[in-house]
Amino acid sequence: DGSLKLFTLNSNPALAEEIAEHLGIPLGKCTVSRFSDGEVQINIEESIRGSDVYVLQSTCAPVNDHVMELLIMIDALKRASAKSINIVMPYYGYARQDRKARSREPIAAKLVADLLETAGTTRVITLDLHAPQIQGFFNVPIDHLQGVPILSDYFEEKNLQDIIVVSPDHGGVTRARKLADRLKTPLGIIDKRRPKPNVAEVMNIIGNVEGKTAILIDDIIDTGGTITLAADALIENGATEVYACCTHPVLSGPAIDRIENSAIKELVVTNSIPLPEEKKLDKTTVLSVAPLIGEAIIRVHEEQSVSILFD
Amino acid sequence: DGSLKLFTLNSNPALAEEIAEHLGIPLGKCTVSRFSDGEVQINIEESIRGSDVYVLQSTCAPVNDHVMELLIMIDALKRASAKSINIVMPYYGYARQDRKARSREPIAAKLVADLLETAGTTRVITLDLHAPQIQGFFNVPIDHLQGVPILSDYFEEKNLQDIIVVSPDHGGVTRARKLADRLKTPLGIIDKRRPKPNVAEVMNIIGNVEGKTAILIDDIIDTGGTITLAADALIENGATEVYACCTHPVLSGPAIDRIENSAIKELVVTNSIPLPEEKKLDKTTVLSVAPLIGEAIIRVHEEQSVSILFD
Ligand SMILES: Nc1ncnc2c1ncn2[C@@H]1O[C@H](COP(=O)(O)O)[C@@H](O)[C@H]1O
Ligand SMILES: Nc1ncnc2c1ncn2[C@@H]1O[C@H](COP(=O)(O)O)[C@@H](O)[C@H]1O
Repeated sequence: DGSLKLFTLNSNPALAEEIAEHLGIPLGKCTVSRFSDGEVQINIEESIRGSDVYVLQSTCAPVNDHVMELLIMIDALKRASAKSINIVMPYYGYARQDRKARSREPIAAKLVADLLETAGTTRVITLDLHAPQIQGFFNVPIDHLQGVPILSDYFEEKNLQDIIVVSPDHGGVTRARKLADRLKTPLGIIDKRRPKPNVAEVMNIIGNVEGKTAILIDDIIDTGGTITLAADALIENGATEVYACCTHPVLSGPAIDRIENSAIKELVVTNSIPLPEEKKLDKTTVLSVAPLIGEAIIRVHEEQSVSILFD
Repeated sequence: DGSLKLFTLNSNPALAEEIAEHLGIPLGKCTVSRFSDGEVQINIEESIRGSDVYVLQSTCAPVNDHVMELLIMIDALKRASAKSINIVMPYYGYARQDRKARSREPIAAKLVADLLETAGTTRVITLDLHAPQIQGFFNVPIDHLQGVPILSDYFEEKNLQDIIVVSPDHGGVTRARKLADRLKTPLGIIDKRRPKPNVAEVMNIIGNVEGKTAILIDDIIDTGGTITLAADALIENGATEVYACCTHPVLSGPAIDRIENSAIKELVVTNSIPLPEEKKLDKTTVLSVAPLIGEAIIRVHEEQSVSILFD
C-alpha cells in the first residue's frame, strides 16, 4: 500500500520520536532487546507488508551493537515483505576507515555499505559523511543531507560581530567555506605542520584572526584533540573568542575534559548522536536535525528531490 | 604461494595458540584493537599476499563485536590479496535464529552467512551447528566438524558402568544417538509436555533410567534451564548419577548458579567458547577441540576430505 512507517532501533530513540512528531505519525511498534547471551532479539509488532519503511539508527557507540541491530532489523523487514527499506543513518560509523592509507588496511566504510545492501536496504538517508566519496560505496540511492545550514542559522541568530570561520585542518575546508559563505565572513585554515620527524607539530594559521570571534567547524569531534589545540592556537594568535561546532558529537575518551578545560566558549553540536547527561557541559548547545530529516523523509516518500533542503 | 597462515581475533586466542602449535606454525602477526570511540581497528603486520589464510573466531559473547571483528578482518585480507580466506568458527553465534517461527522474525543465522560471504569468505570450517541446515545458508564450501567423538572418548576413558545417554529434548536426539552408539549404551529422551496452557511442564522420560548413570548431551548449554531441569527429572526417576556434556558452553545469565546447585555431578564441555575463571566450576571439565580443528585445517589445506575425522 506504500504507507509510510518509521521504526527506531536503540541508538537514538529521542531523535526518532521527534522525527515521528514532525511526520505526524506514531513510531512503528517494535521491541529491540537482547537474549540472555547478548544476541540481538527483534520483534516487529505490527504488519509492514507493502509499506515504505524508514529505520532510524545512528551507528555511534556501541557501534558494533548498533550495526548488527540495523542489519538484523533490515533482514526482518525484508522477510516481512516491506515495499521499501529506507535506512536513516544520521551518523555513519566506520566512516573514517574509508581508504587504504597503509598496506593491509580494511576499508570498513565500504564493508558497512555492502553489509547494508546485502541485508536488504533499498535506500539510505544520511548526514554529513566524513568523506562524501562514501556515497559511491552504495549501489542503492543515497541522500546526503548537510548540517551546515542548521549550524549557520544558529550562529546567525546569535548575531556575533567580526567573525572568522576557521577549519581546523585542510580536510575540512569545503565545509568551513560553506559556513563562511552563509555567514558572509572570511575563512581561516589551521595548517598543522611537523617541521622534522619526532618534533611537535606547529599550528600555523592561514588568515588573520587578530581581534576576531573565531568559529571552528568540523564534521566529527571525537577525542577533542584537534579542536581544542586549534582553539588554543587561535587565542594565541589574538582571537578574542572561540566557538566550536560540529555535526557529530562522538566525544569519546578525554573529549569532555579537554573541551571543559579549553579556550572554547561554546560547543554547538547536533543530535545526530545523542549526548548522555555526563557528556552535556554547560557550554554545550544541541541543535536538532529532526526537522531536516523529517522533511527529507517526506520528500523521499513523495518522490521529490531533497536537494532543495540545502538552499 | 599458497602458504598456510593462521590468524586469531579476540574471541578465543588460547584455542588459536593451541591450533597453531598443532600445525607447527606461529600465529600470524596482527593487532585487533579499538579506536577511542569503540570502532574496531585491525593491523595485519605481515604480508599475506597469495597465502591461504585461516582466521579463528568464535562468535560468542560479546557476539556483535566478534562478528564485526571477523567481517573487518575478512575485508582487510581480501584487499591484501589473500589467495583464500578460510573462516574457522568453532562456535557459530546467532545459530538459534535459524528459521521464521513467528511472523516478522529475522533469520539472523542466514544473515550472518550472507555477511561473511559478502565480506569475502571463501570457505567456512565450523563445529556442531545448532541446526545442520545452516550449512545450506552458505554458497561457499563449509566443513561441519562434530564434537561427539571428543566427548565420547572422554567418557569411554572414565569407564563408567551401566550408562544411559539422554537427550534433554526431541531436537537433540540425533546427537544423543551418536554418543549412545559410540558408547554402546541405550538412549533416553526427555519428553517435555505442557498438559494445558499456563500449567507447568511435565518432564516425562522415555526409556528406563532407574539405577543407571545418565549422561545428558546437548549442543549448547546457555542459561542452563533445560539441562538442570532434565538432571532433576532423571534423579527423580531413579538415576544414580547424572553427567552433562555439550560442545558449546555459552553459560549466560543464571547458568553457573543453576549448574553449581544442580544434581549434575560433572559438566563436560569443549573450548569452542573460552570459559573465564569465574565460569569454571570444580565440576567442570574442558576438552580441547584444537587437535580436531588443526587436523581439519591440514586436510582442507592439502585438499583432502575431512569426513574421515568423523569415523
Ligand atoms: N574510529 C576512529 N577513531 C580514530 N581514528 C580513526 C577511526 N577510524 C579511522 N581512523 C583513522 O583516521 C584516519 C582517517 O581520518 P581522516 O584523515 O580525517 O579521514 C586514518 O588514519 C584512520 O586510521
Ligand atoms: N540467543 C538466543 N538465546 C535464547 N533463545 C534464542 C536465541 N536465539 C534464538 N532463540 C530462540 O530459540 C528458539 C529456537 O531454538 P531451538 O528450538 O532450540 O532451535 C527460538 O524460539 C528463538 O527465538
